Amino acid sequence: MKIQAVKGTRDFYPEDMARRNFIVDGWKRASIRNGFLEFDGPIFEYLAMYQQKSGDEIASQLFAFEDRGERMLAIRPEITPTLARMVNQRINALPRPIKWFSVPRLCRAERPQKGRLREFFQWNVDIIGVDDCLADAEVIFCAVDYLIEAGLGSDDIVVRISSRRLLASLLEYFGIEESQLDKVYAVLDKKAKVPPEAFEKMLEEAITDADKRVKVMNLMAAETLVELEQFAGNDENAKKAVDELKRLFEYLNVMGISEFCTFDIGIVRGLAYYTGIVFEIYDKSQQLRAICGGGRYDNLLADFGGPKITATGMGMGDCVLGIVLEEKGIFSKAAVNGVIEYFVAYAEDALRNDALNIIAKIRRAGKIADFSYKGGGLGKQLKQASAAGAKQCVIIGQEYSQKKLILKDMIKGEQVEIVESEFLGQLKNAD
Amino acid sequence: MKIQAVKGTRDFYPEDMARRNFIVDGWKRASIRNGFLEFDGPIFEYLAMYQQKSGDEIASQLFAFEDRGERMLAIRPEITPTLARMVNQRINALPRPIKWFSVPRLCRAERPQKGRLREFFQWNVDIIGVDDCLADAEVIFCAVDYLIEAGLGSDDIVVRISSRRLLASLLEYFGIEESQLDKVYAVLDKKAKVPPEAFEKMLEEAITDADKRVKVMNLMAAETLVELEQFAGNDENAKKAVDELKRLFEYLNVMGISEFCTFDIGIVRGLAYYTGIVFEIYDKSQQLRAICGGGRYDNLLADFGGPKITATGMGMGDCVLGIVLEEKGIFSKAAVNGVIEYFVAYAEDALRNDALNIIAKIRRAGKIADFSYKGGGLGKQLKQASAAGAKQCVIIGQEYSQKKLILKDMIKGEQVEIVESEFLGQLKNAD
Repeated sequence: MKIQAVKGTRDFYPEDMARRNFIVDGWKRASIRNGFLEFDGPIFEYLAMYQQKSGDEIASQLFAFEDRGERMLAIRPEITPTLARMVNQRINALPRPIKWFSVPRLCRAERPQKGRLREFFQWNVDIIGVDDCLADAEVIFCAVDYLIEAGLGSDDIVVRISSRRLLASLLEYFGIEESQLDKVYAVLDKKAKVPPEAFEKMLEEAITDADKRVKVMNLMAAETLVELEQFAGNDENAKKAVDELKRLFEYLNVMGISEFCTFDIGIVRGLAYYTGIVFEIYDKSQQLRAICGGGRYDNLLADFGGPKITATGMGMGDCVLGIVLEEKGIFSKAAVNGVIEYFVAYAEDALRNDALNIIAKIRRAGKIADFSYKGGGLGKQLKQASAAGAKQCVIIGQEYSQKKLILKDMIKGEQVEIVESEFLGQLKNAD
Repeated sequence: MKIQAVKGTRDFYPEDMARRNFIVDGWKRASIRNGFLEFDGPIFEYLAMYQQKSGDEIASQLFAFEDRGERMLAIRPEITPTLARMVNQRINALPRPIKWFSVPRLCRAERPQKGRLREFFQWNVDIIGVDDCLADAEVIFCAVDYLIEAGLGSDDIVVRISSRRLLASLLEYFGIEESQLDKVYAVLDKKAKVPPEAFEKMLEEAITDADKRVKVMNLMAAETLVELEQFAGNDENAKKAVDELKRLFEYLNVMGISEFCTFDIGIVRGLAYYTGIVFEIYDKSQQLRAICGGGRYDNLLADFGGPKITATGMGMGDCVLGIVLEEKGIFSKAAVNGVIEYFVAYAEDALRNDALNIIAKIRRAGKIADFSYKGGGLGKQLKQASAAGAKQCVIIGQEYSQKKLILKDMIKGEQVEIVESEFLGQLKNAD
């Protein structure tokens, strides 16, 4: 029986795992220093949870199954519904603001392609209970803070920012009905993703009135907030939305990342649940999907049976990010974990038990130690140590009759004799 | 819409996540210092992969589903088949011995009960390509090394060790046919898990010949390796198996963990694929399932279409272990990650942007920083800092007109004035 991996999934051999850990460990560090606490939920939930509020794209990509009690379940395609469920369950006990992060494994039944797999990891950062766009600024800062630490600069990446609230108020101001908004958002979200003709055709289907359509086309060509103010005219809602965006950019400036950030009316986001500021982060040099996307979702907790509480957050997957880190040469820093600190070699088989005894003590002292199962000549073992990248070798030879070891520095090539008890004592005091 | 979590799954709120991380981080540290490299596979594989070699218990507990291409898939109930698949795929490229570990999330469709959930994490450690029972000793050492670091001693836990090879040779020596062995193993595995009468009844069904059954019952009452040698008589295979066990215990002694280890003929292991030494680790004080189990599986790679290569390994789940760590009071050490190093407070709203600027710089320097969204009086903010467990407060007040900050030690209560640039310079040099 020879079975393959399922297409669209990944095997993480140690060198692949090192890259995944390089990404995930960085995500965790950035979250923690930005004041977020880690949470996680189950890998599967009730199917119904994902069918209502995830937007059509995700709902059509669920891996669903039935358990023995005939309950319909699904592997999670995103973690935000789980977050809403968990927060709602303890809404009165949790101190606010809630600043949580998670690094869930997610699955979507889509066709595998560049930057998109059927199984991936996604960093999620959310702030619940803060109305002010300072929270949106903090979410964006956290994402950029990670990307800078990973080695990317403002020449590499750009944060494109807009506002669903602004778009909604302007579209309504143009005479498009509220009930039509979700349909129009879905089309506008495709603007940068499909050819101009295809976009125009989709827009024609969504907005049948030619006058309104021209207004929308003009709006989508706006490049600055100043232009937006002109579109807003005297509409109070639109003016408020522009003011909010201005305040957001001021915060981003104060936090020192304005060189990464730009206004872009074309950022709409595919998911149905966004209500305010929305953003996406892109690699500047390539035609890749967004590295990261997020925004404000003020209705989601209520949609899941809780109170209406404001929230904002973002998600960053590991697939597009991985492509960027690879192409920038940043992944070369991701070393396989566990560089051997002490490789224990023994001059003859009779000393193997002594070697095992010392290895066990080094490991118990918290240091990384390994040895050769095969044994054989010392030269062969030292070669193996060198191939494994060991920093030091502990050699057990004839000196061991006086309980002495040879300690060989594998980088400098120097070696010293040391009394066993002294060596073991040093290990424990080393850190 | 108010939806619950699925029964048998867990929500990890930050305090639960801290406990999960306490366990998982410890597993990873122990693996790395024992010379293992991390790997992982997909969360789902082809269903067929789990139906052949996992043993009936696991095969009946699969969460299976169909993808859009009508392929039958299943969420992984264990990672060993994935390991076999991955190693087989690169069998000629991977240097041996292969010493790998993984901490997979696994799902099994079983009835939730104490120490058993439908979703859990399991530490796996495997050594592939080493025939000698030194590899089995190293796997056992690694598990015990972790448990000692976690805070458990030989008063708390015991490693019960036996040998499938020994059992097989003795059962065959008693006249039980090889084709009957799997059935008999499954019964013997239940000895300590069901009442004596139930065990006897099961054995009667598995071994109809009364003479043979009496021999097996006597064998299962043996308590030492010396007794086993008497059972072995002149049977070469049985004698070899006893010798191997003796050598294993010598290794465990040399590695300094013999006080944790005992021979127990009743250890058989449920899974069909074990072929040699088998072991389970138990909490001494309670009637819990095994904390950990493992053993040698010499045919698994070949069963998955690869060459016949010897292997040994173990798995340790987080559920039973979690119960033990809780009851021993060890979980109290598991702190929620991210104790705030600097809480930045501002004396008036006009200084909030300056506060944001400093927070961003502290975070960019890799330190954990947070602040109050609400602001309000300084006293209120300091109270919030204290409630959040912040170590130090950075206060931005009237001194900031001369670019000076107040640094308040929240433990000692002392405070000093410091020039902003000096404070920021110190951050970068701190580690």
